[in-house]
Amino acid sequence: MAKPSPVSPLAPTHVPAMPEIAGVRLGTAAAGIRYKGRTDVLLAVMDKGTTAAGVFTTSKCPSAPVEWCRAVLKGGKAQALVVNSGNANAFTGKTGKASTKLTGDIAAKAVGCKPNEIFLASTGVIGEPLDATKFNGVLDKLNETATPDGWLDAAKAIMTTDTFPKVATAKVKLGKATVTINGMAKGAGMIAPDMATMLSFIFTDAPISAPALQALLKAGVADSFNAVTIDGDTSTSDTLLMFATGAAAAQGAPKITKASDVRLKAFVKALHMILNDLAEQVARDGEGARKLVEVVVEGATTKASARRIAMSIANSPLVKTAIAGEDANWGRVVMAVGKAGEPANRDKLSISFNGIRVAKSGARDPSYDETEVSNAMKNDKVQIKVALGLGKGRDRVLTCDLTKEYVAINGDYRS
Amino acid sequence: MAKPSPVSPLAPTHVPAMPEIAGVRLGTAAAGIRYKGRTDVLLAVMDKGTTAAGVFTTSKCPSAPVEWCRAVLKGGKAQALVVNSGNANAFTGKTGKASTKLTGDIAAKAVGCKPNEIFLASTGVIGEPLDATKFNGVLDKLNETATPDGWLDAAKAIMTTDTFPKVATAKVKLGKATVTINGMAKGAGMIAPDMATMLSFIFTDAPISAPALQALLKAGVADSFNAVTIDGDTSTSDTLLMFATGAAAAQGAPKITKASDVRLKAFVKALHMILNDLAEQVARDGEGARKLVEVVVEGATTKASARRIAMSIANSPLVKTAIAGEDANWGRVVMAVGKAGEPANRDKLSISFNGIRVAKSGARDPSYDETEVSNAMKNDKVQIKVALGLGKGRDRVLTCDLTKEYVAINGDYRS
Repeated sequence: MAKPSPVSPLAPTHVPAMPEIAGVRLGTAAAGIRYKGRTDVLLAVMDKGTTAAGVFTTSKCPSAPVEWCRAVLKGGKAQALVVNSGNANAFTGKTGKASTKLTGDIAAKAVGCKPNEIFLASTGVIGEPLDATKFNGVLDKLNETATPDGWLDAAKAIMTTDTFPKVATAKVKLGKATVTINGMAKGAGMIAPDMATMLSFIFTDAPISAPALQALLKAGVADSFNAVTIDGDTSTSDTLLMFATGAAAAQGAPKITKASDVRLKAFVKALHMILNDLAEQVARDGEGARKLVEVVVEGATTKASARRIAMSIANSPLVKTAIAGEDANWGRVVMAVGKAGEPANRDKLSISFNGIRVAKSGARDPSYDETEVSNAMKNDKVQIKVALGLGKGRDRVLTCDLTKEYVAINGDYRS
Repeated sequence: MAKPSPVSPLAPTHVPAMPEIAGVRLGTAAAGIRYKGRTDVLLAVMDKGTTAAGVFTTSKCPSAPVEWCRAVLKGGKAQALVVNSGNANAFTGKTGKASTKLTGDIAAKAVGCKPNEIFLASTGVIGEPLDATKFNGVLDKLNETATPDGWLDAAKAIMTTDTFPKVATAKVKLGKATVTINGMAKGAGMIAPDMATMLSFIFTDAPISAPALQALLKAGVADSFNAVTIDGDTSTSDTLLMFATGAAAAQGAPKITKASDVRLKAFVKALHMILNDLAEQVARDGEGARKLVEVVVEGATTKASARRIAMSIANSPLVKTAIAGEDANWGRVVMAVGKAGEPANRDKLSISFNGIRVAKSGARDPSYDETEVSNAMKNDKVQIKVALGLGKGRDRVLTCDLTKEYVAINGDYRS
């Protein structure tokens, strides 16, 4: 194991107070999944009638809990979420499948529902069998003691190499009622040292049907979690789940059955804000990160083309090491644009760092001031903007720099 | 500029003696392209009748010399090659194009041929105008003094952040004559610190027509230079050129007009050996590299699918840092297989490190000995073998580990 890192210098200075959400109770425990005496289990219990939505890793080798959730999601109902850290239950073969089944059974019995209303997520070491019998006794006790507060403790329970817990919250009007959205996330590399997974869980008391919730979540993820990259590596376990208890219906919130419902306007805006906030926190906690990097590509032929070019820049080791070295190395940005394979005309390209244009029309901008750029690069947030001059396609992604600490965290250890 | 690095620990222990090639003369000089007193120009002069072939970067933002070579290659004839280090003449707009034209004119005048028989390659800083007037006086003097030996000096003249010169040579029978193939290469990252380019030049006295030569080179590059990756970044300037003087015809070598000519069998084998040798030397000189990594993927649905999976593994920062840490982290290999997006069945996957199987049938191989694997990972060459169990597709790629030195070389400097 890597030694515990100090908190990222990019950690948010303010952690919001997390309100309760009617219909959700939380409990955490130390079940000794991998280490003794370390909180490693989160149980979220939800009232009957809670709907569920989920988005998962695109990996062709997903973990057992991802396969479990995909199957359970077909029912669209949730009564509990069980998350453990310490073991990802990924690449564990038939044992892994049996382990999810046993966890689902134990949780269903504890909460008093069917196994297909239980959602599971695991994060930690890959390839080690997860001994689900450790949940025996733990989950029923947690069900008895779970309380509506303790959101920060919940966010801490799911951390692995994260250096700070990640939460976000918002209250908005839905009809005449006020509804709440709470979110938490973990994830520091797409796979941390021998650990796996970006996990995020969103809860609301808004009454929204499962299909509508799924559509809302899918739309929200495209420009938030799917627009963040630490190292271009994709976990076998990435899981984003959203649960809607519907408890706000008692305060007069309208029951929503379509994602396109106009009454959702404020809700959708708040949901996107929360997803963006959590995604940015993941980038801010990138392994070894010292700088948050926003890559903006505009003037591409389409938004999808802008995304691919932005990802090519954000995943380039040479761009990321240059940012770590506080070097406005636009030649490497050109390289990354060129290798993306998307339409680009070298002689129309302009590139700016933190608002200072260093290249235009396919050559160095003769007017830029090297000292001014050098100073701008010392900022702990660096924006790279590329204008292609071809069309109206625009997109942005977030990443972080590539430092020696990243190599140390991921290379200097023996598990 | 980064401080000069000590020679890579992976450098070949033996440098071959490079024989002369009839019809080729070489000269190097210090033209002060970027630094004073440093050899930075190579002129290779070739006899009339020399044919040419070339393969270039797939970047959508290629350098001016790449565009020049692509145009000149249509004629298929070569009388000189001019290479400079210190300035890549990439992303230099109209100035860059004018600069290649002026270099071509100066070289053509010096050698006594047409500009469309001159090939150009530049490596070094991106985005700085290349002052081609510096070639004035230099190239005609080089043409007068160029000699058939000095291959190692030539290989040194084209180095940037390379820690050792890269050459390879072979002699084979073509008909009843003995023909020679000489090659040289440079390239340490796909883009070294503020530098660009993998360059390689192959020369032979075999009489081979330009179309046949082009077909031979294209076929040879697929499993050599195109199967090497340092950091997944693609230079704007990657250039591989091959020249055939045809001088061996005087010794009775048959004139070859088709790549499929059966008399080429030994020649093709030697050419592939040289291309592989040079490509491996490039991987051995990867920036900061401490280990040469061979990724073998077998049992894929097709060779192309095996290549994409192998590249996904070879470009994964998490796999590469694990190798640097001498950790047989097969979980990260599974992750990289999964993210490649190619057909893969988790439960059929086997993974070996240096011949020791650590995972089989989708789970940890219960029989492997951790101490044995740990010892194997200390080797300076590490083979990762993945067996997918789906079909007969097989491929291999070469890369190196990702160390703190890579980050230092690429991040710890201000140009």
